[in-house]
Amino acid sequence: MELTHFDKTGAAIMVDVTEKPETLREAVARGEIHVTAETMSQILQGTAKKGDVLGVARIAGIMGVKKTSDLIPLCHPLPIGKVNIDFTADEDHLRVICTCTVKTAGQTGVEMEALTGVSTALLTIYDMCKAIDKHMEITGIHLERKSGGKSGLFVYREENHA
Amino acid sequence: MELTHFDKTGAAIMVDVTEKPETLREAVARGEIHVTAETMSQILQGTAKKGDVLGVARIAGIMGVKKTSDLIPLCHPLPIGKVNIDFTADEDHLRVICTCTVKTAGQTGVEMEALTGVSTALLTIYDMCKAIDKHMEITGIHLERKSGGKSGLFVYREENHA
Amino acid sequence: MELTHFDKTGAAIMVDVTEKPETLREAVARGEIHVTAETMSQILQGTAKKGDVLGVARIAGIMGVKKTSDLIPLCHPLPIGKVNIDFTADEDHLRVICTCTVKTAGQTGVEMEALTGVSTALLTIYDMCKAIDKHMEITGIHLERKSGGKSGLFVYREENHA
Amino acid sequence: MELTHFDKTGAAIMVDVTEKPETLREAVARGEIHVTAETMSQILQGTAKKGDVLGVARIAGIMGVKKTSDLIPLCHPLPIGKVNIDFTADEDHLRVICTCTVKTAGQTGVEMEALTGVSTALLTIYDMCKAIDKHMEITGIHLERKSGGKSGLFVYREENHA
Amino acid sequence: MELTHFDKTGAAIMVDVTEKPETLREAVARGEIHVTAETMSQILQGTAKKGDVLGVARIAGIMGVKKTSDLIPLCHPLPIGKVNIDFTADEDHLRVICTCTVKTAGQTGVEMEALTGVSTALLTIYDMCKAIDKHMEITGIHLERKSGGKSGLFVYREENHA
Amino acid sequence: MELTHFDKTGAAIMVDVTEKPETLREAVARGEIHVTAETMSQILQGTAKKGDVLGVARIAGIMGVKKTSDLIPLCHPLPIGKVNIDFTADEDHLRVICTCTVKTAGQTGVEMEALTGVSTALLTIYDMCKAIDKHMEITGIHLERKSGGKSGLFVYREENHA
Repeated sequence: MELTHFDKTGAAIMVDVTEKPETLREAVARGEIHVTAETMSQILQGTAKKGDVLGVARIAGIMGVKKTSDLIPLCHPLPIGKVNIDFTADEDHLRVICTCTVKTAGQTGVEMEALTGVSTALLTIYDMCKAIDKHMEITGIHLERKSGGKSGLFVYREENHA
Repeated sequence: MELTHFDKTGAAIMVDVTEKPETLREAVARGEIHVTAETMSQILQGTAKKGDVLGVARIAGIMGVKKTSDLIPLCHPLPIGKVNIDFTADEDHLRVICTCTVKTAGQTGVEMEALTGVSTALLTIYDMCKAIDKHMEITGIHLERKSGGKSGLFVYREENHA
Repeated sequence: MELTHFDKTGAAIMVDVTEKPETLREAVARGEIHVTAETMSQILQGTAKKGDVLGVARIAGIMGVKKTSDLIPLCHPLPIGKVNIDFTADEDHLRVICTCTVKTAGQTGVEMEALTGVSTALLTIYDMCKAIDKHMEITGIHLERKSGGKSGLFVYREENHA
Repeated sequence: MELTHFDKTGAAIMVDVTEKPETLREAVARGEIHVTAETMSQILQGTAKKGDVLGVARIAGIMGVKKTSDLIPLCHPLPIGKVNIDFTADEDHLRVICTCTVKTAGQTGVEMEALTGVSTALLTIYDMCKAIDKHMEITGIHLERKSGGKSGLFVYREENHA
Repeated sequence: MELTHFDKTGAAIMVDVTEKPETLREAVARGEIHVTAETMSQILQGTAKKGDVLGVARIAGIMGVKKTSDLIPLCHPLPIGKVNIDFTADEDHLRVICTCTVKTAGQTGVEMEALTGVSTALLTIYDMCKAIDKHMEITGIHLERKSGGKSGLFVYREENHA
Repeated sequence: MELTHFDKTGAAIMVDVTEKPETLREAVARGEIHVTAETMSQILQGTAKKGDVLGVARIAGIMGVKKTSDLIPLCHPLPIGKVNIDFTADEDHLRVICTCTVKTAGQTGVEMEALTGVSTALLTIYDMCKAIDKHMEITGIHLERKSGGKSGLFVYREENHA
């Protein structure tokens, strides 16, 4: 096994994908932000009426997906065919869970796009709530699922990590 | 306590900082990525000689800091006076810890810049290692320390969160 | 009277502002989009509950303000101290009116920033409604008010134009 | 009829176009800027010799087309196959008319690209002339024509709007 | 022979490539930076161990390739399938030679991408060494080779220029 | 003498400038592009009437200056107070000489901005003429002059390099 982002001399490269077929690919990433009870309450109020933290974070996440190849040095610029970002406010554990799904018909996968979407959305929640809560923590960002391309289906297994 | 990024009608706004004095501000953010033993070994080899994953991630993180206000919708564009990004490869816990320090002489704090630097650096490590490890997890991103400005010194307390 | 964005040979330049003092400046721009009754009804529904066209357009407008110097060739990059974007849905005239207010403590005015904020917000409304209405028209974009700097207060007079 | 940029829960999404065929698509947008007689005279002089306002605005418009998906949150990034921007200086009505034509071989239309090109070009004219005329107005921005894709030919009808 | 980036009236255009077939294309550009003996020594030390000037410049060059259509007004945005950047430190002539190879499966060539990659990499070397050497010179940037597309193979001939 | 863009461990950093005073700074960079007689003739025709290669390149160069800190990894984002770009078409030597002057009131110098302006302008000339001339060469890019800041006046001496 070796890192594909380096050539034989150890120099960083953007991997050649020009001869790979365009196939339908999808990636789902997930992550969460832990907040105080007060912050959770403010977020939930906004979702119901005005001051919509999650609405702003969703837009930031979608726009973040489109900036992936500008942020991650060796990432290929890709057509983006679909993005959606979902939030679950889990009051019991004082956390907001974010999932980002990205689809493309392209020559390489969109896992970095999905992960960047999750990261940007969670950072935006942080930004909007930081005036009342500086102990928030963004955590558990991982690739949940990935399909399409030569490597086929991947599903994250919790136990693989612990 | 209320979210400052909304006006009285609940509309998102970029907060007025024009009358705040320019003061010296610093923020330190921290986060980590959990990897397999094989990935850790590849990262450590690269740091010692060629195929330098952390070197690439450091550049991505520094450039990410400069893109913060482009990524986070209500964030002010700020002069950036200093950025550094440190990595600690913790072999015992199979994780790479990243800290990002940002300084500015500005009208508002740089905590979002430091957090964006950490996120971008960790996403870049993910990108470079994903060919050999799809179970990586980015975790524990938080503001470690912040100084300067009206609110003064902030230091993260672990227990505040758990 | 002459165009300041050209030198004596007629070559485009970015004007020298390095010796101008930093003063508090504010600009308000305004514009509107004309829509069908059906589109207006969809927009109003979203504002009240879900599917919030104006919420998305507001974020786009604020982010557009920050991209002004990247879009307008001879525009100076400026610190942006405050942005807010307001919408009035005028059902009688089937139009949504947008105003964008930008403040800075800088060496030159922010009228282009305010105008770019309005344009971007209105284009975003267009994008979100174009599936049901291709006859929308964006119209009446102008500088409503401007204060600060050597030239002092400016207020738009309707009659001056007609 | 419903807005396609929201899912069933009302959350903003980037629509899935991955299964749409790539077809040749073209869009033409149009808009205008109203100026004083003095400004019109300056613009016309520049076009003839030096101090070429419209030349600068044309470049800004073409570059603006390429930034569309970065400005409009739910817009797909698209390959851009052709852009041209035309200006007509209408001295009788003291206005400059701008049309922007964009072509692509893609999975979705380029009307937002054409509209963004027009807006950016007109804002640039504004910027270059604002030292001598603060009563300019950008107006009448609409989609003139669109062809290609499943929905086929669209032509703007003036009466549909008034 | 005429310049294709202008229409018949002399207005700048982005050329229509929508009907050109997608073919595999490759371009190699080359350039160099001349430095003092002291700077050369610092660069060589860094490549061997820490303070890796060329490693940073390589990342900057790869990221610069992806920004080409944002920098060059009439350049088409293209998928980028592969990028690599090589440096040769030529101690005898006190210069670092940079070559950048870009591949795409696209409708137009990638020579501007390769040239932009070389320029950005060399400017980055300049930036990193300018504290100790202000007499550096970036020179000899040209297209070395180009293949694919209707015009076929091009190879730079030294004598053609002198 | 040592490279300031690395810390003691050899890690790349953005240098701390937060405690440096804001002073008036100016930098002038210069470079040239060598072309065939046919290309030179086309460029000269355009400057006189329509098809203005140098007019487009000037706009690209000015916009390139504003992107410097986005392109060069360790470069500070700076306010830009003035930019102008001059071209001299030297028919005898079949070259176009470009100089770019940048001024700022800032905490660090603008030499990278001036050099990036020259590079972008020359690459744009290349792009616009490449259909008729693939043997162009961009050459002699260097810092001509720099003033302001602690290090004071710098003037390039030809002999220092040869």
